[in-house]
Amino acid sequence: MTNSVKVALFQFNPTVGDIVENTNKIIAGINSAIAKGCNLFITSELAICGYSPEDLLFRANFYQQINQQLKRLLTFKDITLIIGCPYQQMEHTFNSAMVINSGQITHRYDKKCLANYGVFDEKRYFTVGQQQIIFELNGIKIGVLICEDLWHQEQAINLQQAGAQLICVLNASPYWQNKHTTRLELVKSLVKQIKIPIIYVNQFGGQDEVVYDGSSFIMLEDQQIQLPAFVECNFFATIDYLDQRYSVSCKPVAPANYDSTQLLYQALTVALKDYVTKNNFAGVILGLSGGIDSALTLAIAYDALGSDKIMALMMPSIYTAAISKEDARAMAHKLKIKYHEIEITDLFNQFKTTLSLSFAGTAEDTTEENIQARIRGTLLMALSNKFGFLVITTGNKSEMATGYATLYGDMAGGFALLKDVLKVDVYKLAKWRNLQTEIIPHRIITRPPSAELRADQTDQDSLPPYPLLDRIIELLVENNLSQEEIINLGFAPDVVNKIARLIKVNEYKRRQAAIGPKISKVSFARDWRYPITNKFNF
Amino acid sequence: MTNSVKVALFQFNPTVGDIVENTNKIIAGINSAIAKGCNLFITSELAICGYSPEDLLFRANFYQQINQQLKRLLTFKDITLIIGCPYQQMEHTFNSAMVINSGQITHRYDKKCLANYGVFDEKRYFTVGQQQIIFELNGIKIGVLICEDLWHQEQAINLQQAGAQLICVLNASPYWQNKHTTRLELVKSLVKQIKIPIIYVNQFGGQDEVVYDGSSFIMLEDQQIQLPAFVECNFFATIDYLDQRYSVSCKPVAPANYDSTQLLYQALTVALKDYVTKNNFAGVILGLSGGIDSALTLAIAYDALGSDKIMALMMPSIYTAAISKEDARAMAHKLKIKYHEIEITDLFNQFKTTLSLSFAGTAEDTTEENIQARIRGTLLMALSNKFGFLVITTGNKSEMATGYATLYGDMAGGFALLKDVLKVDVYKLAKWRNLQTEIIPHRIITRPPSAELRADQTDQDSLPPYPLLDRIIELLVENNLSQEEIINLGFAPDVVNKIARLIKVNEYKRRQAAIGPKISKVSFARDWRYPITNKFNF
Repeated sequence: MTNSVKVALFQFNPTVGDIVENTNKIIAGINSAIAKGCNLFITSELAICGYSPEDLLFRANFYQQINQQLKRLLTFKDITLIIGCPYQQMEHTFNSAMVINSGQITHRYDKKCLANYGVFDEKRYFTVGQQQIIFELNGIKIGVLICEDLWHQEQAINLQQAGAQLICVLNASPYWQNKHTTRLELVKSLVKQIKIPIIYVNQFGGQDEVVYDGSSFIMLEDQQIQLPAFVECNFFATIDYLDQRYSVSCKPVAPANYDSTQLLYQALTVALKDYVTKNNFAGVILGLSGGIDSALTLAIAYDALGSDKIMALMMPSIYTAAISKEDARAMAHKLKIKYHEIEITDLFNQFKTTLSLSFAGTAEDTTEENIQARIRGTLLMALSNKFGFLVITTGNKSEMATGYATLYGDMAGGFALLKDVLKVDVYKLAKWRNLQTEIIPHRIITRPPSAELRADQTDQDSLPPYPLLDRIIELLVENNLSQEEIINLGFAPDVVNKIARLIKVNEYKRRQAAIGPKISKVSFARDWRYPITNKFNF
Repeated sequence: MTNSVKVALFQFNPTVGDIVENTNKIIAGINSAIAKGCNLFITSELAICGYSPEDLLFRANFYQQINQQLKRLLTFKDITLIIGCPYQQMEHTFNSAMVINSGQITHRYDKKCLANYGVFDEKRYFTVGQQQIIFELNGIKIGVLICEDLWHQEQAINLQQAGAQLICVLNASPYWQNKHTTRLELVKSLVKQIKIPIIYVNQFGGQDEVVYDGSSFIMLEDQQIQLPAFVECNFFATIDYLDQRYSVSCKPVAPANYDSTQLLYQALTVALKDYVTKNNFAGVILGLSGGIDSALTLAIAYDALGSDKIMALMMPSIYTAAISKEDARAMAHKLKIKYHEIEITDLFNQFKTTLSLSFAGTAEDTTEENIQARIRGTLLMALSNKFGFLVITTGNKSEMATGYATLYGDMAGGFALLKDVLKVDVYKLAKWRNLQTEIIPHRIITRPPSAELRADQTDQDSLPPYPLLDRIIELLVENNLSQEEIINLGFAPDVVNKIARLIKVNEYKRRQAAIGPKISKVSFARDWRYPITNKFNF
């Protein structure tokens, strides 16, 4: 006898706190699933409120609204729903999955393994769940897990030992480079062990500093259905259970392109698009310098938002090379975006005049470089304030790490798109984008990088060559090595010491930086919590 | 027979990560204690590395250095030490107290109740301890607890039931207004119940956004020894145990002044002083506007650092009242601080000229107000960059809540001293300070507050009266009430809705604000973690 279940994997893009609209989307998804004859519908983790609501979880009326919306889902009688939402009972809050059957919540699963590392603070909010649940649908026994549970293999094993024949996992698993490979390896080896299918439904979309890739999938011992990354998708599949063997049938899925540079580019595009649209900005404005960082930022913004919603501002000074202006103009022209040039020389001179008394007898130094950067920040903010466009900043992770950026200057803005992208990856992304269609002037990619804040300046006057710098940043920040360990790998002590010192003394700058999407294992977002006042050299 | 122990309560000001120097201080404390004939020495929580080291706890070489320094403490043979420090064993990290006896670590207590709310993230770092410890000294059985343990009464009760006759508690308990009263009530009622003394040793000093008051104490059923707040202090007392009764004898302590305004003033003074000195700044610079916030900030800076380390900058525009200049000058003169006046009118005009093409056809609005604020921010930062003084910002909590402040303008700076102080408390503090010696010109306290960014502007053009505004902020932010609940208390719906909306839409500003000391139950520091992208109205 064949038992089978037709399941809908609802990979959607919720907005945090938009409880009614998220529920509307879920209901539309359920209706499509019913129309396709599905009898099981699965959302991502905390789907009704979106992940992560953070301290909204402390507000009593948050749960009132969630429970109200949950009631709307009780009208569906002919399909079983597994819905992620927070649940409050007395003084306890759970990260739950509600199983809704024939218009009733028949089971509630509370997440057992709470994520409390990296960007996650689940133990701040949630009580650990105590019980596993298994329910039956069309003769198939179904267990439920939530995200982190899956990474503690005993949870899935316990379900299988208790008789589960299928495990549904609700996730809000952030994207970072190469993470999906790790996920697949984990689940593959788990399925090999427990020999029952796992359905993995992940949130999609950008939420402040985190971007979720979706990339949901169904894993069987000998079959794997991979949904695409970075799109909404209500995916239907039938799981058949015949003679102790499982199989899955569905419409063929276009082969997922897991080129890692493309995925990274998509992640950044989605992060920006969602920040802009979910926060109702009319568009974005950025400073275009003729350099690689702002060029890549513009390219991504163009792909995320289109020409109409972008304004670029070139703010040359006497230190700006002619080719910087040419290349900025050429790119803006090619992309048909609004483009202004505003000379900052008069303002810079006026600042020097205004400060001349206070600065009498002092030599020019980085102070004057910072003034130029702050004039530019002020001009960008002025246009932003006047026209309602969000300023996006263009600095990269190598700069964020070493403090090679001016607070209230080039750091001024609401979203720091490349904040977690090392300079070497900035080049990689720019080249990849140009391979699709050439929109970044070639010379921008090949010329030596410079902040153009004094005569004949290049980044390498102050910093080691980027490939070396970036490798050491990775080792210090992402791999958590000490200076000594890195020196023992063969890197020059003075270079390692210098970079470690720069990372430490620039904590205060990062603390005031705009948020930007995490795309690496350790970003300078909520997963980096170092004191500013700190005498320890790591 | 009398058993007795002579104990040193070591209330000190560690610097996070300054492992060697903290240990030096501890050793000096031990030597004094030995000289006074003590046989027990107790530090605060995580004394060797200072609280809180945050993600430094993830660095392997952090523990190497701590363990090295711990070894230096094994040279003391004639005194029992209870030393707070983190301890790593395999993949587990504990928040521990080492009992060192005759040159050996004879017991280790691992904190059981990990604080993971408010500003605390202990579950990010530490494994829950499993065992209570009791050791004997001079015939007295001593139990050990760490901070949060004490707030879960069963921990102390279990120790007493297991035979403890004295409980020593190592703390890093942050100051906030009226918290010490809560502490004392808790411990008083606990001691009444368990009938054995509790020795409470707390950290003192500022660490980034948190300030610790010390305020250590010894609590007996019928006796209470209170150490002073906000000073380092190595305090000696003898606890005698005779016929089932305890008594404590020590040098008389000056009666603690728990006037709450004075304590708050001290907290702010210590927070600023420690941020400046622990981060090796030459001094501070601030914008003096002739208003109450900058006047109070200057007063506190003066008390924290003295005249020599303060530079004030008055940056008038055409909107600056003559009395603003007079009062700023008068205060600077009285305090003998460096004082500059720099007119911003030329710069403001130059910005308008530079932007005239881009702004053609638009009317003046808050954009032009923000430009003035950003000119001032840039000038302050220029002086800061040139002379190495830290810019301190002067905005208060009412402004932080409602966004009545300009990013990169008056928000530019490294330390926001009044960030958690409501406007009503700004007045209270200014009046209290003037009662000691009048340093704030009287007119600054009595005139209506204004940002002076356009003609005839007052704060109350944009905001409800401060007493009303501040009460609603307290209810929304600190008491966690919903708008509906506040309206039900009798507040006008349009005012409540407006303030709640302002709090929500200004999350992005707070995320880029300078750090500043938490002095309330819920500050906009690490204890406020709301998403920026958020559609929920709390």
